[in-house]
Amino acid sequence: MKYLITGISGFVGGHYLEYILSKGSGACVLGIDTERPKFDFLNSSKCKRIKFHKGSLMDKARVKNLIKKARPDFIINLASYSSVARSWRDPAECFVNNTNIFLNLLEAVREAGIKTKILSVGSSEEYGVVDRENIPLTEKSPLNPANPYAVARVAQEEISKVYAAGYGTPLICTRSFNHIGPRQRDIFVVSSFAKQVMEGKLKRRRKIICGNLEIVRDFIDVRDVVRAYDLLLQKGKIGQIYNVCSGQGHKLSEILDMLQKKAGTDIPTEVNRDLMRPVDSPVIIGSYAKLRKDTGFKLKHTIAGSLCDMLEYWKAQIR
Amino acid sequence: MKYLITGISGFVGGHYLEYILSKGSGACVLGIDTERPKFDFLNSSKCKRIKFHKGSLMDKARVKNLIKKARPDFIINLASYSSVARSWRDPAECFVNNTNIFLNLLEAVREAGIKTKILSVGSSEEYGVVDRENIPLTEKSPLNPANPYAVARVAQEEISKVYAAGYGTPLICTRSFNHIGPRQRDIFVVSSFAKQVMEGKLKRRRKIICGNLEIVRDFIDVRDVVRAYDLLLQKGKIGQIYNVCSGQGHKLSEILDMLQKKAGTDIPTEVNRDLMRPVDSPVIIGSYAKLRKDTGFKLKHTIAGSLCDMLEYWKAQIR
Repeated sequence: MKYLITGISGFVGGHYLEYILSKGSGACVLGIDTERPKFDFLNSSKCKRIKFHKGSLMDKARVKNLIKKARPDFIINLASYSSVARSWRDPAECFVNNTNIFLNLLEAVREAGIKTKILSVGSSEEYGVVDRENIPLTEKSPLNPANPYAVARVAQEEISKVYAAGYGTPLICTRSFNHIGPRQRDIFVVSSFAKQVMEGKLKRRRKIICGNLEIVRDFIDVRDVVRAYDLLLQKGKIGQIYNVCSGQGHKLSEILDMLQKKAGTDIPTEVNRDLMRPVDSPVIIGSYAKLRKDTGFKLKHTIAGSLCDMLEYWKAQIR
Repeated sequence: MKYLITGISGFVGGHYLEYILSKGSGACVLGIDTERPKFDFLNSSKCKRIKFHKGSLMDKARVKNLIKKARPDFIINLASYSSVARSWRDPAECFVNNTNIFLNLLEAVREAGIKTKILSVGSSEEYGVVDRENIPLTEKSPLNPANPYAVARVAQEEISKVYAAGYGTPLICTRSFNHIGPRQRDIFVVSSFAKQVMEGKLKRRRKIICGNLEIVRDFIDVRDVVRAYDLLLQKGKIGQIYNVCSGQGHKLSEILDMLQKKAGTDIPTEVNRDLMRPVDSPVIIGSYAKLRKDTGFKLKHTIAGSLCDMLEYWKAQIR
């Protein structure tokens, strides 16, 4: 089996690669990214099965050439401008880049005439501002994308449906909920909390800066996410959309309390209004019943375990 | 009042310009298109109020410069890759061009810091394959875009909603149904029928080539369309979506019969399978109740009158 992972140098890319290697299936991986990965997979003993290609997926000709040569069995499209805040600052850029990258991949596969299975990774952001009566969100819940990033993700999903129906491209779509786990950047809320708690414990800060602690979100460990993705590529139904989530909601204040308890700290918090979003759903929780039913997926990580791993990660980073 | 009409050299653009001039309101019009218009407005006595700019809206810097200088009160975005058939042949191109053009316009207005009202012209194609129980289609009917062109139009609408909500851009969206009227190109079904009937009457052909004659569509005269657009810019509610349609359905066979009767012909038909679409809705009829309620819009053209005008147009063209 040959995987092409776009955006391999990112948080999810690294964990996906680790997962593939841990399976010991002998699969080959071609990773593409605009930046070299920080993790050291190229020097691992398994390096013969892994190739890295530095380049932009915006370059149509390059993508065509790459896919024509590699003829991957699976493509996991993790390359994305995934920051909502950034998408408000540069909406056109965010939208165009996300959709262009995806279209370049689809067109390259279509023109190569190969039957590559493609995982179109979407986002719970597609659901937008959610009414409590729609919780838990299922794949049939209405979509109300409320920022440019979310609109790009909805467009990607609609494009996927049209390619699946019109050209028979074997696509599977996800709506992936908030990720957590070690190595996540601190622009994401839980990783920022874990880092700040650890900095406080190591006497590097006195206050934890936070936004709205009252919102409830569905956090899923990145290692469960990549397992779900791999199961979807093996057993997911072509042309279908799947929530990838934990099915459990946690208030941000509760997450912060758990982190402080685990770290043995009691650092005071300070709200920074700049971290509040103008429009935000009070509660977002998904249902992964469809994923479980079609692939047999089960969660392996608990929120407590994920938070411990994140604290450990930041401890090592700070020292 | 100053209008910027993109795609002014097209079918709808020409009729919109005629309508503005006929109102005698003294409004100025800046038209932009990649091709010079065929109609001779630049030599009309009203030419001082009309400017034409030849150029592509894909050129971001050019669009910014143009809008910064012109500071239009209204933008009507008629520039589009509007052929469904073409969107299947080159899906990426269709999608990217439609959304890029639109985003370039929105960003130019946002950066200029002006309060230009923008008409985002969408399509009944957004509804996709429609169940009979959803007829007539209202703005609340579900969207199921079934081709790349339709996906681009849905994305444009979602982008509009996000800009209206997030940046306060004064946008109004339409879902415009099948247009008819003089000067329409013969790649569109009714204009093709009118041309073929007239060619038959003038002994230039013996058969009318057609696709599926059983489908029912909602045809609206382009002159009613442009009046609806102008009313929407004056009275439409910001951030809202409006069907622009006639509310009446006609079978294609019925349209062809009406054309033959008016022309006094009885030309035999021949089905060309290439003109059949793989996926098509048997019936598409919209409701324009919302447009009527918010703007007072009333239809002025009957289907019979439109067909007569189209026959006259082709008669003049063929001779």
